[in-house]
Amino acid sequence: MDFPARTPEPPYYAVVFTSRRTPADAEGYAVTAERMLELASGQPGFLGIESVRAADGHGITVSFWDSLESIRRWGRDAEHRLAQAGGRSKWYAAYRLRVCRVESDRIFEPSENP
Amino acid sequence: MDFPARTPEPPYYAVVFTSRRTPADAEGYAVTAERMLELASGQPGFLGIESVRAADGHGITVSFWDSLESIRRWGRDAEHRLAQAGGRSKWYAAYRLRVCRVESDRIFEPSENP
Repeated sequence: MDFPARTPEPPYYAVVFTSRRTPADAEGYAVTAERMLELASGQPGFLGIESVRAADGHGITVSFWDSLESIRRWGRDAEHRLAQAGGRSKWYAAYRLRVCRVESDRIFEPSENP
Repeated sequence: MDFPARTPEPPYYAVVFTSRRTPADAEGYAVTAERMLELASGQPGFLGIESVRAADGHGITVSFWDSLESIRRWGRDAEHRLAQAGGRSKWYAAYRLRVCRVESDRIFEPSENP
């Protein structure tokens, strides 16, 4: 997966998901997180995803979408809703999810585009 | 610093800065990154910041602002521009900077707000 994600020209939409992990259930979390990346990538309107988690349990995942409707549809996906419930009951100490409209971007990738 | 950042009710603006580090100059980078966090926090219109970097060099920093004008002013800050030049010449293999309007949010922080 490209990092940074190779998103199209703005405008498009982003979901910025910022979270702190609990120490609980590292293995179950890893399996579900990987599955959600795979499932999100197959959704209609998906444009890309970037995810980083540091050793202290702080994480930011940004997913990119063509429309608010695509974001809503992914939020209501049945398997995704099960994962969300797991997030609230055991995996996350806290999170904020922000839905954004990407207005402009600036790209620096000298090695790939010499 | 709060993580996630305690931003106000939307709408407001976010700068999502996604980057891959080179292996170069870890110490100089750390000093400058710390200084930029401090400097950004003192800018007019600053609402908060979240930053995560993983061991593989992938990083996402999201800063929050009251307006596009505040974002532009911070982008033009003289010391910040010097750091940006260092980023392009040695610290970053690639980055994307996306300017976004935050439309809505969802908050989960059970331990702080029982």
